[in-house]
Amino acid sequence: MSLSPAPAVDLGAALSRRAQSMNASAIREILKVTQRPEVISFAGGLPAPELFPIEEVRAAANTVLDRYGPAALQYSTTEGHPPLREWLAAQAGIPAANVQIMTGSQQGLDLLGKVLIDEGDTVLVEAPTYLGALQSFQPYLPRYVQLPTDDGGIDVEALEEVLKTTPAKLLYAVPNFQNPTGRTLSAERRRRLVELTAQYGVLVIEDDPYGQLRFTGEPAPSLYSLGLEFHGDPDRNHVIYSSSFSKTLVPGLRDAWVQAAAPIMTKLIQAKQGADLHTPTFNQMIVAELVQEVLPRQIERVRQAYGERARFMLERVQADFPPEVAYTIPQGGMFLWLTLPQGVDTAALLPAAVERRVAYVPGSPFYALGGGENTLRLSYTSATPAQIETGIHALGDLLRGAL
Amino acid sequence: MSLSPAPAVDLGAALSRRAQSMNASAIREILKVTQRPEVISFAGGLPAPELFPIEEVRAAANTVLDRYGPAALQYSTTEGHPPLREWLAAQAGIPAANVQIMTGSQQGLDLLGKVLIDEGDTVLVEAPTYLGALQSFQPYLPRYVQLPTDDGGIDVEALEEVLKTTPAKLLYAVPNFQNPTGRTLSAERRRRLVELTAQYGVLVIEDDPYGQLRFTGEPAPSLYSLGLEFHGDPDRNHVIYSSSFSKTLVPGLRDAWVQAAAPIMTKLIQAKQGADLHTPTFNQMIVAELVQEVLPRQIERVRQAYGERARFMLERVQADFPPEVAYTIPQGGMFLWLTLPQGVDTAALLPAAVERRVAYVPGSPFYALGGGENTLRLSYTSATPAQIETGIHALGDLLRGAL
Repeated sequence: MSLSPAPAVDLGAALSRRAQSMNASAIREILKVTQRPEVISFAGGLPAPELFPIEEVRAAANTVLDRYGPAALQYSTTEGHPPLREWLAAQAGIPAANVQIMTGSQQGLDLLGKVLIDEGDTVLVEAPTYLGALQSFQPYLPRYVQLPTDDGGIDVEALEEVLKTTPAKLLYAVPNFQNPTGRTLSAERRRRLVELTAQYGVLVIEDDPYGQLRFTGEPAPSLYSLGLEFHGDPDRNHVIYSSSFSKTLVPGLRDAWVQAAAPIMTKLIQAKQGADLHTPTFNQMIVAELVQEVLPRQIERVRQAYGERARFMLERVQADFPPEVAYTIPQGGMFLWLTLPQGVDTAALLPAAVERRVAYVPGSPFYALGGGENTLRLSYTSATPAQIETGIHALGDLLRGAL
Repeated sequence: MSLSPAPAVDLGAALSRRAQSMNASAIREILKVTQRPEVISFAGGLPAPELFPIEEVRAAANTVLDRYGPAALQYSTTEGHPPLREWLAAQAGIPAANVQIMTGSQQGLDLLGKVLIDEGDTVLVEAPTYLGALQSFQPYLPRYVQLPTDDGGIDVEALEEVLKTTPAKLLYAVPNFQNPTGRTLSAERRRRLVELTAQYGVLVIEDDPYGQLRFTGEPAPSLYSLGLEFHGDPDRNHVIYSSSFSKTLVPGLRDAWVQAAAPIMTKLIQAKQGADLHTPTFNQMIVAELVQEVLPRQIERVRQAYGERARFMLERVQADFPPEVAYTIPQGGMFLWLTLPQGVDTAALLPAAVERRVAYVPGSPFYALGGGENTLRLSYTSATPAQIETGIHALGDLLRGAL
């Protein structure tokens, strides 16, 4: 029997409303333009690959295959490799039952969106905020409200005003060395944010991929630990914590985790099971091999390198940029944020920058509801001092011309 | 400043409707009971670990670190490691643009649900069907319609009747050695299914984790290849194909893929980016090292072992089970399906089976809309001949007692 002539199926019409709401990442499209090898790129958000502990990963992979044999390559539990969960739980002073291993922190954000956000629910975000979180939440069709920020992070007075008038489901924040601004939420504000959100019954997702990468200043307590102190019980904590080994160890293994209270964790585990059954067994075992000795050394190494690169980039920015350009002074992490005078459009300027062989990310895509056309993000993690010197000089020239 | 007394936040009330619709996997809960070491378990769906190519994986991991260095541990593209995509595309005779690498085929099902299913959309499923697909689709709140099946798979006459009266978004099927029944859709019915679904504008998700593990009989063309033949263009194919390296190579690396037409692929890539950015770089590179030489050898090895185990289990079933018990005769894959006389409840029988130190999975959870209380699934992949002999004998005793 042969097939009869083929009626065409309208594939586009079959897409869900949720799919229609998704967009290609603006940044992803922009980065394609800036990947020419002669361009000095401050646009990427990649950790410095020359710092990766390749030989330690190799040794761990071999150890894991020796020790676990086929179990290292077999299906495993949804919650995660027990020694890794237990180590993470011990670090946070909570039971392992409150820890779920994720395939990259992006998965943590996706699954939290899945189990928490109904269509039309209000999600409070920093202005600007991490673009990847917006991408993860978007398919669940939330309504965003932007919270004003300054050099101390979220303005908690403004937050209180918003909470008084707006019933919100959750607040999403990156309190340490935020992507994209590099800003850190002050200790005082952290306490107030935890109090206020508890008072108004608003969950908090604390996204903390960079917290360990502080190169100056004093660490502030995590929102999660304040929530724990506040409620006295990890199963009543309204703060959910997400972090990752991508920035401290390596990103290519995709190992991350979420800490949450039991009522949320129960659903998170079910969602994880439907999403990918479990994070790769082999990778979790490799990371578990590395957390005791390699991870602390690696954090120290990355912290020092990024601190030097940040200081050098800030020096060159001070020397080469016109005085009208404001910039953040990060205490850790990977990013620097520039604010140009109103009216300058950094997206429109990008082609001219690429012509001068330097690239950045325009700031506007980081705003959930638009704005920030006069802002841009610079990453200092993967550039050599010579590249920083040349690139910042070229960018300074461009900005002087534009003002 | 210390924190003021803590108002409790109602965490359960914060869950999305979607989360409230999720349930713990019935099978997962059942399996917990059957994991006592003295129990012979035919319940699991795990590939046989003694067949895993551990040393080949070790060698590939080392080669990948030698060849790619830090790039093996860095972030990579959402679509997947180019050599792996290209190899898969070449196997299917399609462009690499129609292939998306997934973190396990469970992720493929989740993301297809995400980009295709709106709340209330009708999804046609086999009765019984793969439980994991139901778990992946459930959060998108579809309405299920069950399709009658027999030993030749989906009854296409009944399918036509359903299509005439029911506007459906998609049909989900496992045409080769289905989980849970072990049944295979006949070649004639495949052509008819592809024609009918095209005619009625219904997308097809062909889930094919076991297709390469045929140990008897003649291979039938995939629904995907028939759709390709039918439309003459991979970007107009209304059949979407999902498969995995979990059953042919190893599951613990979580490497799988989806083949789809451009209008769907565009959204699938965006959904993948929001879900986990990309499948672990290291794992994709390891699999790409293994596909040329190790994979074909491994498929041969697994096929032969499972064929022997299936034949032996069928022999013992014929010898030890009462004649009222009907069973499928799989041509490949991992499962055997038993139908007992109406009125026998296999879930109620399970504790007595475990007391006799043998375990199976009751069939009812595999029915999207209930039914099949008199059915059960047996896996023959991970048992030794002695275990099969002892276990089937014990089960035969139990069934004779129950009838």
